[in-house]
Amino acid sequence: MEENKQKQKNKPSELRQDIVTGDWVVIATGRAKRPEDFAVHKSEGIEEDSGKKCFFCYPEETGQEKDTLIYQTSDGDWSLRVIPNKFPAFTRPSGKAIKHQEEGPYFWMESIGYHEIIITRDHRKQIAQMDKYTVAEVIDAYQERYLDLMNKKSVNYIEIFHNHGKEAGASISHPHSQLVAIPVISPYIKSELDGAEKYWRGNKHCVYCAMAEWEAEKKTRVIFENDEFIAFCPFASRAAFEVWVMPKKHKPYFERTSVNSRIKLAETLQISIRKIYKALDNPPYNFYIHTAPCDGKDYPHYHWHIEILPRTSIWAGFELSTGVEVSTIIPEEAAGFLKDQ
Amino acid sequence: MEENKQKQKNKPSELRQDIVTGDWVVIATGRAKRPEDFAVHKSEGIEEDSGKKCFFCYPEETGQEKDTLIYQTSDGDWSLRVIPNKFPAFTRPSGKAIKHQEEGPYFWMESIGYHEIIITRDHRKQIAQMDKYTVAEVIDAYQERYLDLMNKKSVNYIEIFHNHGKEAGASISHPHSQLVAIPVISPYIKSELDGAEKYWRGNKHCVYCAMAEWEAEKKTRVIFENDEFIAFCPFASRAAFEVWVMPKKHKPYFERTSVNSRIKLAETLQISIRKIYKALDNPPYNFYIHTAPCDGKDYPHYHWHIEILPRTSIWAGFELSTGVEVSTIIPEEAAGFLKDQ
Repeated sequence: MEENKQKQKNKPSELRQDIVTGDWVVIATGRAKRPEDFAVHKSEGIEEDSGKKCFFCYPEETGQEKDTLIYQTSDGDWSLRVIPNKFPAFTRPSGKAIKHQEEGPYFWMESIGYHEIIITRDHRKQIAQMDKYTVAEVIDAYQERYLDLMNKKSVNYIEIFHNHGKEAGASISHPHSQLVAIPVISPYIKSELDGAEKYWRGNKHCVYCAMAEWEAEKKTRVIFENDEFIAFCPFASRAAFEVWVMPKKHKPYFERTSVNSRIKLAETLQISIRKIYKALDNPPYNFYIHTAPCDGKDYPHYHWHIEILPRTSIWAGFELSTGVEVSTIIPEEAAGFLKDQ
Repeated sequence: MEENKQKQKNKPSELRQDIVTGDWVVIATGRAKRPEDFAVHKSEGIEEDSGKKCFFCYPEETGQEKDTLIYQTSDGDWSLRVIPNKFPAFTRPSGKAIKHQEEGPYFWMESIGYHEIIITRDHRKQIAQMDKYTVAEVIDAYQERYLDLMNKKSVNYIEIFHNHGKEAGASISHPHSQLVAIPVISPYIKSELDGAEKYWRGNKHCVYCAMAEWEAEKKTRVIFENDEFIAFCPFASRAAFEVWVMPKKHKPYFERTSVNSRIKLAETLQISIRKIYKALDNPPYNFYIHTAPCDGKDYPHYHWHIEILPRTSIWAGFELSTGVEVSTIIPEEAAGFLKDQ
């Protein structure tokens, strides 16, 4: 134990490879607690419940590093800011190359990358209550940070995600998104890239375009659309009331979205989340962007999109064991219910 | 909406395929609720809290179908029973062949299979408090049901799992396990089968044997072992305090475990769960068996095992988006802490 504790203190975060599947996991010792702290019956509570001043409202007063990006308002206040995560799951690159290390049959490497927080001004106003221009500013920040990080050494994929509600993993109630730029291409993205390429080879067409076209024609699973984006409950929803937001035209790369398109994207995302908020009484949810990797290769067959997952049920042994998810409402009915909100 | 509701009532559960990844999801309309019932702020509560008589204590009094299997005690009581799930995620085969159906670009089929509940006698005594012989009886029942179902038409994989605690998806507090026999081989099993075969081709050795041998020699991640089984925190743990229980010798098929080995397995599983129970103050957890499919093929390169996942944290947007899991304690320290219990 002691020896391990010692070792842990001096250790940077690690990426460790599952030698069966080849998938990577992150051992984020930077955020490590003592073993005793994992006892589940100690309640953790959301930051704001602890009575402390919200340090997303006043990042400059919390010994936080200076902003990576800040959008000022005309009256000298700010409307959005991006700060480095104080407890990053990925430690910033030191410049030296990352090398694979071995322990017996296993492989690991230093968990190098960038981990940033995108914060909107209002402590209480969540996306469901924002206007589309505030959401567009959030998307602008996603893209601006993406463009800044995409060509950095040791960055091969950039994950942008948003957690809402404690049950969805948000440990701080002040609305915020996160950006993580990492050296590995994650298993889920890999399987979407492979699937999209395979479908293209077989059908001479993009699999996501095929979905978007079919949904736009059928309408039974569509909850909102404008001329550029469509929001629908996927045919094979993994979660009840899952919603995907997708460009109608074939677009592999999120970072190439124009300013006008970003407003239409903001409208589609905001309305989708507002419908989920109303339909399910402010449920916890996660959304994230899936886009082509930035590892120097081109991915012409991929089609970027956003997946919104309301957390209305718990993944139990069956889902964890098989990866086969069980949804208890048919997507057509979920869509009908959301559309009516 | 109405039309959908109608449709839903008359619809059997469905397996729908994600046309990008090829993975399947289950739309279990048999357990469907009305859309309004998904609103998260209606608390659901565990069966026992509802004041109702526990229908796992008295299944015969709840209009439940008769037992699939029952172990009687000498005094005429029962010690274990297996009953069909009243709200199955999979509907029992009608005899006619399952055919793939199409909707535009999508594929689905009827969600055919078997879904059973394995119930131990004592309403309060969970595995952490059982003796190894009671646990051995549970494992006997797993195997007996497995052998009965493995060669049935439309059964290609049998998943056996156990949920403990509401946060791990147990909706009924009376200790029970579940068995689901399904026509599809799940994505996680598929990726383990592929990985094991690939490793064997490259190393002329089983990847799980390589792990078990290395862990037994190093000892830093081992929490318990006897002459046939080893329990350790995997090098690339996906969850804090994750534990794998594995036969030390190369064994692809769980159903071939002998009666003597089942007692040694029971000892290893019970002690592992008891250590987790003590270390983390009775946390919610899931465990499940990963074994070779029963689809008529042989899987000589696979190595069956049990994975135990304590639920001490919530998978948030990053994990859901990437499949890259973030663990906040190094497995060596977790193992040291568990070993000391």
